[in-house]
Parts: sequence; C-alpha cells; structure tokens
Amino acid sequence: MVFFDNASTTKVYPEVNEMLLYYNNIEYYNAGGLYKFATEISNKISFARHNILKMLGGKIGDNFVFTSGATEANNMVINFAKKFKKGKFLFSVGEHPSVYNTALEMRNLGYNVDFVKLDSSGKVDILDYESKLTSDVVFVSIMHVSNETGAINPIKKLCEIAKKVNKNIIFHSDGVQAVGKISVNLSQLGVDLYTISAHKIHGPKGVGGLYIKSGISIKPFIFGGGQENGLRSGTENVGGILAFDRALQISISHLDESYDKITLLKKQLLSNFENFDYNPKIVSSEDSSPYIVSFLCQNLRGETLLHKLDDCGFMVGNGSACSSKRKGNRILENMGYSDSEIEGALRVSFSFDNTIEEVDNFTKALNAVIIDYKKGTGR
Amino acid sequence: MVFFDNASTTKVYPEVNEMLLYYNNIEYYNAGGLYKFATEISNKISFARHNILKMLGGKIGDNFVFTSGATEANNMVINFAKKFKKGKFLFSVGEHPSVYNTALEMRNLGYNVDFVKLDSSGKVDILDYESKLTSDVVFVSIMHVSNETGAINPIKKLCEIAKKVNKNIIFHSDGVQAVGKISVNLSQLGVDLYTISAHKIHGPKGVGGLYIKSGISIKPFIFGGGQENGLRSGTENVGGILAFDRALQISISHLDESYDKITLLKKQLLSNFENFDYNPKIVSSEDSSPYIVSFLCQNLRGETLLHKLDDCGFMVGNGSACSSKRKGNRILENMGYSDSEIEGALRVSFSFDNTIEEVDNFTKALNAVIIDYKKGTGR
Repeated sequence: MVFFDNASTTKVYPEVNEMLLYYNNIEYYNAGGLYKFATEISNKISFARHNILKMLGGKIGDNFVFTSGATEANNMVINFAKKFKKGKFLFSVGEHPSVYNTALEMRNLGYNVDFVKLDSSGKVDILDYESKLTSDVVFVSIMHVSNETGAINPIKKLCEIAKKVNKNIIFHSDGVQAVGKISVNLSQLGVDLYTISAHKIHGPKGVGGLYIKSGISIKPFIFGGGQENGLRSGTENVGGILAFDRALQISISHLDESYDKITLLKKQLLSNFENFDYNPKIVSSEDSSPYIVSFLCQNLRGETLLHKLDDCGFMVGNGSACSSKRKGNRILENMGYSDSEIEGALRVSFSFDNTIEEVDNFTKALNAVIIDYKKGTGR
Repeated sequence: MVFFDNASTTKVYPEVNEMLLYYNNIEYYNAGGLYKFATEISNKISFARHNILKMLGGKIGDNFVFTSGATEANNMVINFAKKFKKGKFLFSVGEHPSVYNTALEMRNLGYNVDFVKLDSSGKVDILDYESKLTSDVVFVSIMHVSNETGAINPIKKLCEIAKKVNKNIIFHSDGVQAVGKISVNLSQLGVDLYTISAHKIHGPKGVGGLYIKSGISIKPFIFGGGQENGLRSGTENVGGILAFDRALQISISHLDESYDKITLLKKQLLSNFENFDYNPKIVSSEDSSPYIVSFLCQNLRGETLLHKLDDCGFMVGNGSACSSKRKGNRILENMGYSDSEIEGALRVSFSFDNTIEEVDNFTKALNAVIIDYKKGTGR
C-alpha cells in the first residue's frame, strides 16, 4: 500500500516512537510533582518549549504553549480574539475547519466576521484583502499553507499590510502545513500567533501548540491546575510534548533535502499527467508547496476514484482529510471551479519517504481507473 | 525509587504501550480518510467508545466523547452548563482545579455559583448540600472520589436528592480517581455526565473522555472538522484512544484483586503509623478509597518532608499533584484542619504494583526523616 495522504497525518518517526515508549514507561512522572524526577520532567518540557521557539525563529520573550493539537490551538486563539467584542474579525475563505467553523460560530454569536476571497491559485486575493482590511479590523487569521491546495500565502506581506492599517491588529496564522516542510521564521513573518501540529510532521497525534509573540497577553481557554504557566491546564502530555520537539528537529534537519525530493515527485506526477488520455486539471499552482497536489477529474466522482485507487493500493485524499466526510468544497468553489469539476477533486500529499516509482505506479493506476470508470459510466 | 504518587499519574501498561507504538507506526491513518484502512481506524474508535460505555454500565443511547484529558472534559461540561445562564450552579469545595477554577471563572463572568462544604471525612456535607440545593439550581458537579483525600462521595444518593428537587438538574461527576479503581456503574449512579482520564489508570497522558447520558444535548467546546460526531473536533488521537480503552479493560479486569491488595497496603501504612514516636494525623477516613492516604505531620513542613523522602527514594505528593505548586489547601481547610496541620500535609497514593515491603520501608524512612527534621528545627 502506498500512502499519499500525508497532509492528513503521517507515520511517526521510529526514534520519536521510542521516546514516547520511554516517557510512558520509565520517566512517566507528572511534571507537577515536587520530587526530583518530576522536576526533571518539568525542565525537559521547558527545554522543548525553548527549542521549538528557537527552531521557529522566535525571540526572547516569545512564548509557546503546548495544546492537544492544532484544532485546540486555533480554538484558543479565536476564544482569545473574542475579548475585543467590537471591531471586525477577518478570516480567509481557505481556512482549515478548526478556524473556519469557529469563525462561523463567532458570527452566530453576533460578532462582525468577514471572509477574504481566494485568487485562482488558492492564495488570499490581495485586493479583496486590502479592501476588507478596514480600520475597524481587530483580528486577522490567514493560514500559511493551504491543506487543500498547498497554496502558500505571503504571510510576511499580509501581516505588514495589516499592521500598517492598524499596528494593534492581532495577526494569527495556522502553520500546520508549513512548519517542518517549508522554511519558517516567525520573527521575520511578523505574526503574533502561529499554530503548529505534531502529527503532520511525523510526531504523535494529540499534541500541537501555539506560538505567542512577546507582548500578546492571550488568556487561557482550558482552566484547571494552571499548567503551561497558567495558559493551558491539564496534566502535561509529557511523551507527546517531548516527541513533538524531536519530530520537529528531525523534520527541520532534513527539510531542504525532503523539499527537493518532493519537488521532484510533484514534477513527475504533473509530467505523467500530461501523457494521460484524460488530462486532470491541476489545482495546485506552480509556486505552491510541493507536498500537496490537488487536481480535478472533471465529470467523474472523486470519491469513486478514491475507492478504486484504494483497491489498487493507493491512499489519497479528496479534500481536507480532517473533514473529508463533509459535502462540497468551499475552497475550490471560491477559486472559481464549477460543481462538475469539484466533484472530481482528489488530493495527493507526499512525505519524504515516498518515491518516484510510487508516483509512476500511481499515475498508471489512476489512468487505468479513469478508463475503467468512463467505460462503466459511458461518460 | 518507589512511586507513591499514583493519584497524579501512573506508568503505562507495557501492553498498552505496544498498542500505541503500533498505531503510531503501522496503522497511523487519519480516521477521517475515506480509504479502507482509515475506515477501519474509524470503526476501531467506535468500538472503543462502545466498549468503554459498556464497561462503565452505560445504556443504549448513551454517548462517550474522547477528549485530550479530564481537564478538557470538565471544561467542556462547564462550558455547556453556561447555556442555562439563569439559575444556580452548585459545586463541592472539594472539586479538582479543572472544575473548581472553571467554576470560579464562571462566577467572575456573573453566574450564580455556590459551593457545598465538606464534612470532616472529606465527603460533601449532606445537610449543607440539601440546604443549597434550592429549586433554582440547574447544574451540580460533585466529584466521585477526591484526589486529595480519597473520600468517596455517595453519588447515587446525591444525584437522587438533586433530581427530587428538580428532575431537569444536570448532574455531573468527575470520576477520574474512581474508574478502574472502585466499581462504577453509571446507569446505577444516575449521573448525566461523568469525566474519566486514561493516565490515572495506566493509560497514556493526553487522552480522557466524557460520558453523556442519553437525552443530554451537550454542545461542542472545540470546533473544527466535526470529529466525534461533531462534539469534539481535531484529528482523533487514534493510539491514545485505543490505548485508553485497553488500559481501562485491563484495570477493570483486576479491579477487585488490586482493591484488596491496596486495602492491605493502606492498613499496613496506618498500622505502621501507630508505632511511630510521632503519630501523623490521618485525613483519609476508613471508608475512603484505599488508593489514596492523606495525612498531616503537624508543625512540620510537608514540602520539606517530601524532599527528604525523595532523597530516601520515595516519591509522594503534598496535595493535588495537578496543582501542587500552588499554595494553601482549600480542601483540608474546609475539612476543618488548622494552618499548622495543613502545612505538614502529605499524600501517598498506591498502584497495584506497590508492595507491603515498600510501605514498610517508607514508614521507616518517614520516621527517620521526621526525627532528623525535628532535631534540625528543634520543634
């Protein structure tokens, strides 16, 4: 079986898995304890926090809070943003459901929520952004890399534009599909808040975190024992946190190498597509993250293709895996695709351990599946 | 080193750790995927959910939502309870910080929050409970077993009393220190909501869950991809969830055996104390959970004793490990102990793998430490 759904989750690095085992079985102490072994655990968590901040280009005074994942971190951000009450809250249409649906919930509660359109490449439409970025905007949330299309938003530029309108605007970015895959320096980007996740970069599920720029007084979302300096209560997921740090280290250590390899995989896939009888429409633009290739098999059902590919040994996505059981696709719609195009949407997402051979076999399988499908339906 | 702080966290069962390894490394799929392997993962999560409900005495129509831990589950409950807006919210003074501090936050927001006193055994004071259970009460949260003292609240009775006052009262109980340790049948208890945690019963940290009785329409606390039937978004922590189910199975399979063994450990500890020159005051009553023994070394500093015991190879708690870095102890205060008594508080909490020999060695060490301490301070 070939796993081409790495934007939804990834296999944990063997070394990281060993760490988890160790912290569950040997150093399994509660970081809140007062004895030496517990204090050591607490110190290791602090070390992991600083290490992650350093790897992401954080500065002294910046903070990083460990959460149960990116979804919780995004909910924490938007819960914090609600404190502004008055003012406009700006999101892109392309946000992950953990931001998008929380924004809709805000709108239901009566907040002034607005959404910025996407351009045809899947990035935020700059003109629409500038026109909606009125002086009453208090909060902006725009993802770094789209989980649907791989489109890379120019966060530095978007953040600068926002801060020029009003330097007090809080700028958040969901960096789940960026960190460990493309180069990220948060100080250079200029964001106030930035969300990351472990399980998208070969760490364990159930752990993520939020970068908080120095000077931003975010309030807790989950109350209790006061862990994470009062910002996130609940017994620290020691193994998960330390494994997260290690997975990020490993991913960053071979970031360029993986990026180059995966760029070749994307090129191969696109070049293979050109030799198809049936040429899928490529959604992911040339300057998007090579980790994600979205394409449309017009007039065919993506879900049917997905199942046929599954039978041939290939696991792919048909939209955000985090919500793939939902109908429709607001992101592709917003990019201007028709319903009949969107119906045939598929997403291939790579990991460093995928190969050119897998890509070639996949394209052969897809070609065969489409021919078979078209015979069956007479389309 | 001897670990006597099992109320704060526990060592993961080796078999459970192997499961985690497997689901991180082999079946690491996102349960939201549409291919067969992902659907299998989704089915396994459903199976774990039903299995946990069955083990806890749930009925058809009841639900169980997996969360990142008990703290999140408790926050979810109280966030849901806020929907009532008008009416009184009743908590016990003895609640875990994840309930107690969230209740304080509610009070800050203007809700009508009241706290029920504890009696001298650490249980909810029934007379105070009945007097505060006025007809305007909409929500009650009383923990099953105290993490500080091991006191077992008569949840069935407390729930019946509440439902007699008003059958629409939502009754929640935090069962973190009960499940897997004492026999729990939620249908018999009659509760509407019940919180449990994996890492207190030899499962991994970072996973817990909430029992929801049939007919209770709890609303989501974390929004996003709509996982957990829309009740808790975020990529499912597959390994954690399946490991949680297995840890609960194992714990329940030797529940009686462990209970009997730990009852002997408690008896041994108390009988050893009687032969001390310096006799600690026992906080945990005879009918409390044997898993937790709290005691007071009056006029001595518990924290100093804890560190001296640590040097002798014994890890113990000095209050709720989830917040042991906080000052004071509202629970012991409420039970009527003086400041000089509370200052010397220590908590020993057992696991099935502790032994009589460890208890004997501990009491010898404590005796020596106290003699040494008193010499040093001249008290």
